[in-house]
Amino acid sequence: MSKLTPELPPDAIDRVIDVAMAEDLVSGDLTSVVCVEPDATARAIANARHSMIVCGGPVFTRVFERIDSTVQVETITPEGQRATAGGELWRVSGRARSILAAERIALNLVQRMSGVATMARDYVDAVPKGARTRIADTRKTTPGLRALERYAVRTGGAHNHRDNLGSAVMIKDNHIVASGGLREAIERAHKHAPHTSRIEAEVTNLDELDIAIEAGADIIMLDNMSTSDMGEAVERVGMIVGPKPILEASGGITLARIPEIATVGVDVISVGALTHSAPAADIGLDFALNGA
Amino acid sequence: MSKLTPELPPDAIDRVIDVAMAEDLVSGDLTSVVCVEPDATARAIANARHSMIVCGGPVFTRVFERIDSTVQVETITPEGQRATAGGELWRVSGRARSILAAERIALNLVQRMSGVATMARDYVDAVPKGARTRIADTRKTTPGLRALERYAVRTGGAHNHRDNLGSAVMIKDNHIVASGGLREAIERAHKHAPHTSRIEAEVTNLDELDIAIEAGADIIMLDNMSTSDMGEAVERVGMIVGPKPILEASGGITLARIPEIATVGVDVISVGALTHSAPAADIGLDFALNGA
Amino acid sequence: MSKLTPELPPDAIDRVIDVAMAEDLVSGDLTSVVCVEPDATARAIANARHSMIVCGGPVFTRVFERIDSTVQVETITPEGQRATAGGELWRVSGRARSILAAERIALNLVQRMSGVATMARDYVDAVPKGARTRIADTRKTTPGLRALERYAVRTGGAHNHRDNLGSAVMIKDNHIVASGGLREAIERAHKHAPHTSRIEAEVTNLDELDIAIEAGADIIMLDNMSTSDMGEAVERVGMIVGPKPILEASGGITLARIPEIATVGVDVISVGALTHSAPAADIGLDFALNGA
Amino acid sequence: MSKLTPELPPDAIDRVIDVAMAEDLVSGDLTSVVCVEPDATARAIANARHSMIVCGGPVFTRVFERIDSTVQVETITPEGQRATAGGELWRVSGRARSILAAERIALNLVQRMSGVATMARDYVDAVPKGARTRIADTRKTTPGLRALERYAVRTGGAHNHRDNLGSAVMIKDNHIVASGGLREAIERAHKHAPHTSRIEAEVTNLDELDIAIEAGADIIMLDNMSTSDMGEAVERVGMIVGPKPILEASGGITLARIPEIATVGVDVISVGALTHSAPAADIGLDFALNGA
Amino acid sequence: MSKLTPELPPDAIDRVIDVAMAEDLVSGDLTSVVCVEPDATARAIANARHSMIVCGGPVFTRVFERIDSTVQVETITPEGQRATAGGELWRVSGRARSILAAERIALNLVQRMSGVATMARDYVDAVPKGARTRIADTRKTTPGLRALERYAVRTGGAHNHRDNLGSAVMIKDNHIVASGGLREAIERAHKHAPHTSRIEAEVTNLDELDIAIEAGADIIMLDNMSTSDMGEAVERVGMIVGPKPILEASGGITLARIPEIATVGVDVISVGALTHSAPAADIGLDFALNGA
Amino acid sequence: MSKLTPELPPDAIDRVIDVAMAEDLVSGDLTSVVCVEPDATARAIANARHSMIVCGGPVFTRVFERIDSTVQVETITPEGQRATAGGELWRVSGRARSILAAERIALNLVQRMSGVATMARDYVDAVPKGARTRIADTRKTTPGLRALERYAVRTGGAHNHRDNLGSAVMIKDNHIVASGGLREAIERAHKHAPHTSRIEAEVTNLDELDIAIEAGADIIMLDNMSTSDMGEAVERVGMIVGPKPILEASGGITLARIPEIATVGVDVISVGALTHSAPAADIGLDFALNGA
Repeated sequence: MSKLTPELPPDAIDRVIDVAMAEDLVSGDLTSVVCVEPDATARAIANARHSMIVCGGPVFTRVFERIDSTVQVETITPEGQRATAGGELWRVSGRARSILAAERIALNLVQRMSGVATMARDYVDAVPKGARTRIADTRKTTPGLRALERYAVRTGGAHNHRDNLGSAVMIKDNHIVASGGLREAIERAHKHAPHTSRIEAEVTNLDELDIAIEAGADIIMLDNMSTSDMGEAVERVGMIVGPKPILEASGGITLARIPEIATVGVDVISVGALTHSAPAADIGLDFALNGA
Repeated sequence: MSKLTPELPPDAIDRVIDVAMAEDLVSGDLTSVVCVEPDATARAIANARHSMIVCGGPVFTRVFERIDSTVQVETITPEGQRATAGGELWRVSGRARSILAAERIALNLVQRMSGVATMARDYVDAVPKGARTRIADTRKTTPGLRALERYAVRTGGAHNHRDNLGSAVMIKDNHIVASGGLREAIERAHKHAPHTSRIEAEVTNLDELDIAIEAGADIIMLDNMSTSDMGEAVERVGMIVGPKPILEASGGITLARIPEIATVGVDVISVGALTHSAPAADIGLDFALNGA
Repeated sequence: MSKLTPELPPDAIDRVIDVAMAEDLVSGDLTSVVCVEPDATARAIANARHSMIVCGGPVFTRVFERIDSTVQVETITPEGQRATAGGELWRVSGRARSILAAERIALNLVQRMSGVATMARDYVDAVPKGARTRIADTRKTTPGLRALERYAVRTGGAHNHRDNLGSAVMIKDNHIVASGGLREAIERAHKHAPHTSRIEAEVTNLDELDIAIEAGADIIMLDNMSTSDMGEAVERVGMIVGPKPILEASGGITLARIPEIATVGVDVISVGALTHSAPAADIGLDFALNGA
Repeated sequence: MSKLTPELPPDAIDRVIDVAMAEDLVSGDLTSVVCVEPDATARAIANARHSMIVCGGPVFTRVFERIDSTVQVETITPEGQRATAGGELWRVSGRARSILAAERIALNLVQRMSGVATMARDYVDAVPKGARTRIADTRKTTPGLRALERYAVRTGGAHNHRDNLGSAVMIKDNHIVASGGLREAIERAHKHAPHTSRIEAEVTNLDELDIAIEAGADIIMLDNMSTSDMGEAVERVGMIVGPKPILEASGGITLARIPEIATVGVDVISVGALTHSAPAADIGLDFALNGA
Repeated sequence: MSKLTPELPPDAIDRVIDVAMAEDLVSGDLTSVVCVEPDATARAIANARHSMIVCGGPVFTRVFERIDSTVQVETITPEGQRATAGGELWRVSGRARSILAAERIALNLVQRMSGVATMARDYVDAVPKGARTRIADTRKTTPGLRALERYAVRTGGAHNHRDNLGSAVMIKDNHIVASGGLREAIERAHKHAPHTSRIEAEVTNLDELDIAIEAGADIIMLDNMSTSDMGEAVERVGMIVGPKPILEASGGITLARIPEIATVGVDVISVGALTHSAPAADIGLDFALNGA
Repeated sequence: MSKLTPELPPDAIDRVIDVAMAEDLVSGDLTSVVCVEPDATARAIANARHSMIVCGGPVFTRVFERIDSTVQVETITPEGQRATAGGELWRVSGRARSILAAERIALNLVQRMSGVATMARDYVDAVPKGARTRIADTRKTTPGLRALERYAVRTGGAHNHRDNLGSAVMIKDNHIVASGGLREAIERAHKHAPHTSRIEAEVTNLDELDIAIEAGADIIMLDNMSTSDMGEAVERVGMIVGPKPILEASGGITLARIPEIATVGVDVISVGALTHSAPAADIGLDFALNGA
């Protein structure tokens, strides 16, 4: 079976680096220019300072390339693989001034991406063997970094939720009120949304679940429901003849609850913390001047 | 004495919102358009879901204004004040479709900003009464959000470190190697850097401290030093006649260590975690359709 | 029942106008500055030169506002309504130089948008009363104008297809080859795509249709199939118990064929010509100097 | 004698591709990533589906290069040459995912450009042998695509009108009213416009023609005049001693009228339809996976 | 007769201010935030420090408005008028922090614009009464500021040359070589350039002048010719029956030579120094805190 | 000892060229396309037309590369070296159309940069041998060109002042008023500014000097003071035990006064004219068609 490799949208990396360079290098790297001879060269190694899922190699590489196209970056640990403390991730060589100028931008990005990938992997690993539940992210991403963080989630082995407000219909309590009821909201979506858009509806109890099923929701989000109610939901859906809606658990999810929720049989557990609260992974850059 | 109010650089907010809108609203808000009548109006209240330092009001307000200039936002809890669980932060009123379309972008930003401000306040509060040590951030910020995160740090009561690679000289181990020694690096900085730039040098032991003092560093960063060595450093600097260099503790800082380090008398403790690992604050938006 | 109003994504209009101003006004409007007194004011009326579905009012208005915020625009014929030859669409009043400078940009945009809306309406009107078939656009839009053209399609009463390459899975012949077969392609999509994304598969005959049904495609595109084969497809899908895939006719569609295809009972007919080949509607701007 | 090759302004292509990628690839190409192995390679051939003037090779090439710099594009049919149905235009080879992701953007652009070039050629070919009349476009271009469409017009063998509102003076009825008369408007232009700008005046009858001649217009546009009046205009201008103004026919131009208008002897016929209403040429991309 | 007011292209100002703010305010105005209470208000007056032609009011106003929309600016000396030393130009009132943050950007722009306008006026005033020679700028403008500098030239009473490489044909020595001769170059331009573009040819002696006249150049630039040769050129052109080419003197122009060249009767004298070497006008901003 | 090479911030060049191309090449280079065969090649040499400090090679090179990546540029005179009249600076070879299209943008930039570098060198050379005074620029730079002009200043051998409003505290008269006094302003800066920011205070007499010294200013700007008062200031500062504030002379500086001010012993003389009033250096481009 295919081994899917996550892929970053073309341009996503450069758009982020443009912004980062405008922030950090608006007037150049004062210290390097002052302390380092212009023709000095160096080599540097990015190391994991603790166990982590490595993520961001193409971004790391591109930062150096953008700041100085003559700098070379070699990947030691491939994307998505676990590195242990001290593990070498990437090797850099080239002009010393350029490596020093690029260091912080590159690290800020890959530390965040590896942090997200590592947390995603923890959640994925918490799903019991045999359960077919997938872990998914949410739209609670860092503004400006959505494409990179969604890629990190995939690199960690989890899945993405909808990308943006236009890529699927997602009916929440407010939309239900505005439509005059859950059934009405789903019907409006069937009638007006592009036929290419899935329709997800949020329910908070089993009565609403039944309505969502009848109205033909493609996905039903079980919002902050107890594990036993989720189990009942799985059962009711299981009795449908033909294609069944997807059940997504959301709200109040912690790593500790993943096994029990997955065991109950929901299809998806979505976890906002993957992107809004993953601590940065700690990655250092060991630098050595050539000929020094 | 003056009560300083932090201020966001003009344009910083709009630059972030431009990017966020391109990510989330590239093809509009499908669900709102499908479920909500175009002329329906609503009111919404942003609530703290736990105790936090509130930060991001001008950003929250501007997101709604950018998406629909007729939406009104009122600030209930002022910037930098602590909100308790359930506390009202901001009230929004206007076109229902617009409020729903703006909700996630606005929340993603203020949750991050309030998260940073809250962690900053925790560190500031850990400095014992009477100690004059300031807590500072680092350049380990989220790419694209540096201005907002530095503002959040100030809102939390902490201070900013240098803004970018051009705003001060900061001599680290790599620069020392490249310059042929710590003393040489500091001398090169004095000779070549703009006279408006402070010169900071990183030292790892007391011998280097003495060199940095002699060479005339404006700031000396005590990198990963033991608390007792830091105490010795404070003592040595205290014996200098005339203006003294600023001592900054950095590396291996945790909230728990703040009291002891501050008590020793360093001027600044810089903490990367403030911006790279603050968990998002949890802020909800309670929405009510008018006339519903 | 709800009367849905199409809505343009916030920012979409301004992004287009930015580009248009850079093209046409890079060095100002030479003729107006040379011929028109700076304080002269005028009024102008945009007229339909033939029967058309009016589309683009918010864009028309914003062009004048961007070039001169003191110019006023009033809408006479609402979006989506049919205007007859000579019908007044919008009235403009304000500084004469500004109106003349804005005229061509504004007209270029609304002529294209109304052209698309008018063609969309023709296709929609060709669907026989009682048939539930919807007319949809494709991604064959003008680069840079996708949001505006999709809005024009909705304004004409038709529907949108997926917005971009990330908003739904659409398996065509090339993807089938690459996946090793139609069934395998659909299975890969179920396994790897976000659970929020519908999965559409293109089939060219009834055997492939059966495979797509079995593999669980959400949408099946009948590519260049004869009307009678489409009828057979509708029949086969009709016999499925429970939720059924959506059938979309595509390829070789002309206005003349709409009635027969719709009568056969497919759910969607997608028409690339709506956006790639709609002739511009002819709209004139009658201008009168005040006090002249 | 020189064989002029039209040339696209540097940067024009990239500016359009930036916008197109933001529209279509904001979250990547979901289907390719899901269905195609990351290291699969392919070849593809762009074919004309009917007779057309080929236009857009540099744009086609650059789209693939921007999305993946390792993809190769070879030009089979040169710019401006006529391809018959089935004719090969360009060959692409490289990473399969990248080719599929780039396909629609590339085709949307060259179909439009070839459509414009083909219509331009039709008009040029309608000018009788021996007549020296040139066919020209107008400023009725697609916002954002002006540089590409003007290039397509030249590729089709026609000429460009003024590029933007700053590149020539063009006095229309509204400017005449604002200046207090046709003669006054032309005199103001002579007095105030850069000496490097030609002055064109629009006239609707032969009396106005005489005024425009006397006032020294460089170009006189005969707006919606009968063919016989145009003939009279050509005659009157022919009697001028020394340099003569250029006569441009405009308004109500159709392909069918070109021979008679050209025969009468006007210098230029300008045709808005070339850019605002040319149907897209139909170009397909035949794709084959390597090793498949 | 009309009194023409120069006008800045819409958007030109904002594009420049965007860049200026990114340069100067990337991390805010540290000093103001530190020294000035957030709610302190102030008034400020921009004064001419020597005699100058005032230029840039709309730019000055917009800088303050962009940095803080609540700041008010009042124009005291209108555009294009001469101010004497100490003369008040504009008055500003509003938030003190904002005024201080905007001061340098605003002054940098108007000092440059007024410097250009002042030098332009000096050249215009050097043309003897009765001579109809106009003074023109060149394309030797500051990259990024062309629209503002061309406006300043017009504000000073001089005229603009062609705006950019696409707005007129200008045949210089290199083009002559490339075309195989002066006559051939002009003929190629007649044949291939848009009919809306004037054709200027550069000549260095009277023989070339004759060729340029015969080949039908619209403008003939007399490059670095002696005053007496220019006189002869004026005479030869004067003998042409019917419309005559425009004669432009260029190369080696100084303020001192203007009277003699103008007296000889050339139509235009173009002066690169107007934009590439005008010294900045000295304008100060006197600031007073309200209630202080 | 190290020979420091100034270095341009990555991206600074491209940002400027983007803007310059949008200004000058928005519709291509009409003349080159019309007069020059598409495959003609040429060589060109940039020559100094008078003695100058050469500056801008990387910018010159990049302009040609951006407009046509196949054009080659070779540097003959290195950055910062003096060229005499007629000296060769850079050699260009490649496609003739591209060289001609790029010529003006490239020259406009390097003429300005070399003009600034040349004036900077004049000021640096005016400092008497043995004096340790450095010449510095100010923030009075051309909007959009700050990074390039600061680099030119360094290339000329002078130093930079603070880069932007966020990179150092600079207390002027207005801030003093707003803070309630000079001492108070400096104290506020010590208390609130990042510890990485130097604090500069402007004084106009010796009493203020004493206050600034006591309050601990890092830099004291002597604003428009007489040479003898500056001498007294140097003396007073000389008597401080330990690190001393830096003394900067500013206001009313002319080249003629440099020797006397430097002799008095101030550390820095800042000169706004370096960037706001340096006349452009005159650099020509001699062009020769290959095979011609």
